[in-house]
Amino acid sequence: MRNWELRVDDIDTPTAGPGQVLTKVLSCGICGSDLHMLKHGEEARQLSDELDDGLPPDPTRPIMFDPSGDMVMGHEFCCEVVELGPDVANLVVGDVVVSMPVAFDAGGVHPLGYSNNYPGGYSEYMVVNEMLAMKVPDGLPHQMAALTEPLAVGIHAVAKSRIAPGDAALIIGLGPVGLACIASLKMQGIGPIVGADFSPARRALAEHLGCDEVVDPAVESPIEAWRRVDGSKPLVIFEAVGVPGMIEHAMRLAPKDARVLIVGVCMQQDQFHPMLGIGKELSLQFVLGYDPLEFGSALDAIATEKVDLAPLLTGTVNIDGVPQAFTDLGNPDAHAKILVEP
Amino acid sequence: MRNWELRVDDIDTPTAGPGQVLTKVLSCGICGSDLHMLKHGEEARQLSDELDDGLPPDPTRPIMFDPSGDMVMGHEFCCEVVELGPDVANLVVGDVVVSMPVAFDAGGVHPLGYSNNYPGGYSEYMVVNEMLAMKVPDGLPHQMAALTEPLAVGIHAVAKSRIAPGDAALIIGLGPVGLACIASLKMQGIGPIVGADFSPARRALAEHLGCDEVVDPAVESPIEAWRRVDGSKPLVIFEAVGVPGMIEHAMRLAPKDARVLIVGVCMQQDQFHPMLGIGKELSLQFVLGYDPLEFGSALDAIATEKVDLAPLLTGTVNIDGVPQAFTDLGNPDAHAKILVEP
Repeated sequence: MRNWELRVDDIDTPTAGPGQVLTKVLSCGICGSDLHMLKHGEEARQLSDELDDGLPPDPTRPIMFDPSGDMVMGHEFCCEVVELGPDVANLVVGDVVVSMPVAFDAGGVHPLGYSNNYPGGYSEYMVVNEMLAMKVPDGLPHQMAALTEPLAVGIHAVAKSRIAPGDAALIIGLGPVGLACIASLKMQGIGPIVGADFSPARRALAEHLGCDEVVDPAVESPIEAWRRVDGSKPLVIFEAVGVPGMIEHAMRLAPKDARVLIVGVCMQQDQFHPMLGIGKELSLQFVLGYDPLEFGSALDAIATEKVDLAPLLTGTVNIDGVPQAFTDLGNPDAHAKILVEP
Repeated sequence: MRNWELRVDDIDTPTAGPGQVLTKVLSCGICGSDLHMLKHGEEARQLSDELDDGLPPDPTRPIMFDPSGDMVMGHEFCCEVVELGPDVANLVVGDVVVSMPVAFDAGGVHPLGYSNNYPGGYSEYMVVNEMLAMKVPDGLPHQMAALTEPLAVGIHAVAKSRIAPGDAALIIGLGPVGLACIASLKMQGIGPIVGADFSPARRALAEHLGCDEVVDPAVESPIEAWRRVDGSKPLVIFEAVGVPGMIEHAMRLAPKDARVLIVGVCMQQDQFHPMLGIGKELSLQFVLGYDPLEFGSALDAIATEKVDLAPLLTGTVNIDGVPQAFTDLGNPDAHAKILVEP
């Protein structure tokens, strides 16, 4: 990406520094955040600039890269070690790994997939820090391992929600993030889980993951569906769409005292009525990312088949096919997760 | 009030039904919510109408009254029992009481101060349910007892924040609600407490209540003040202004992982950038009101002088003076709490 436009181009192969390894990308999922970034990143970048108060850049700033420079996106990757940098002790060439999408060096911390300095996974080669790399268990296809990152998002959101057995969950938006939340809730024994999406294909995926009730919001209000199947347990709502208006929408649906987890990444300015939150004493918890333990437990859940995410994989492209894949992902009935296999 | 305009008028003396008492209002504080309601109530009412989904009206709806009918505001009252309705067992004529501002009867629940059916405290007489009335201890001036309600707001907001010793607090807006939060935090031993307001008079009141550091936002950013005096403890921010833009402002100030309590009542549509919350994983907890235990502990704290709220009382008017008092409260340097003494 350069100047908020996708380009397919040749770049230099990056170099592994101390504690880093050079890897060949085996597969890398295309994330909705990348689509949002391309379309609305400039607005988010301006917000970042306004926040610039002279403190050093840190990952809590929405945008840390220079959009006029080259940036290779892709943060849901599985890759194979092809060269060791200095001081690497625990990885060997041929290891297949996943990693939290962060690189660090003497210059600081770099978000892999949103950095001018380190290419992300929509490229042939990328650099990963040994300390964050996790070996993919033998026999697990790299396509499945590439789903570690999106599942970790769901595991983190569910952990942050403090939801517990005895609570119910409503998932608004059944894209990969909403589906990851369902998979995570299911592993924790939460139920009933109600999922809402206009797309029949996505509702079918949610059912495959164990969603107790799916609803087409064009036919029935998601909150009515929750009342129909339960309506008594404390409700946690996961907003997993991430476009303007969805937070207000979730606040309107929410019953009194509900917690609303903001998992979708809306990069534009949004509008809402605080009175909706006040009258119902709602809590809005924004979430982002995951920690290394959550990332590791996502890999473990996939490897040990605690969840079956295989039906989410709806397409594969090579690097030349990335721009078309960005377009194709606009059709939720055709695709859930498209992998890039360079 | 009728059609969103203040009027001073004669109304019929209300009648105490079963379990209710007729009282003479001794004093009643003018609340910022009343000023907001007068100015922006129509927008909040339209929101309420949109939410009308055929379910019976309930107190989570922002507006339950008909603005074209008469409505007497005033929900921070202390009053004296002058007549007992049927089936009243524990109150006698002459008792001085405060009450949560809710009346109930066979027709349902009515918010005192925002109801067409029951006048609030800006009138000579009002009806209170025995079950919610709390006797004011002997010797406590009714003017001080009338501060029970605003203090209960602070006690509830602090309880809902789950703040604990070891956390720090930043209060944005040092009107009666912000000051009540400070009083409540102080009683819980929380510190440091940083308070921010443009008004020197209000900053002085905050200091009187034990606020550890007060800051004029025109001179220093409130978050810089917090960094200066502490900057290491987990921070809970109390937004106690309640006008559009303040939630975004608090989100910009907030450090990573902060909780933001929305205590101010903004009745208009508001704008914000969800990215600010996402990047810092903020939580926004909206709060409203209090429960009977919190209300009782507010009365107890005032009666036993755990807090000294006397300096908040900056003026007294009779009923004829209410419209002018609404205007005067626009000057934060001149006034904090004006009491109506009919």
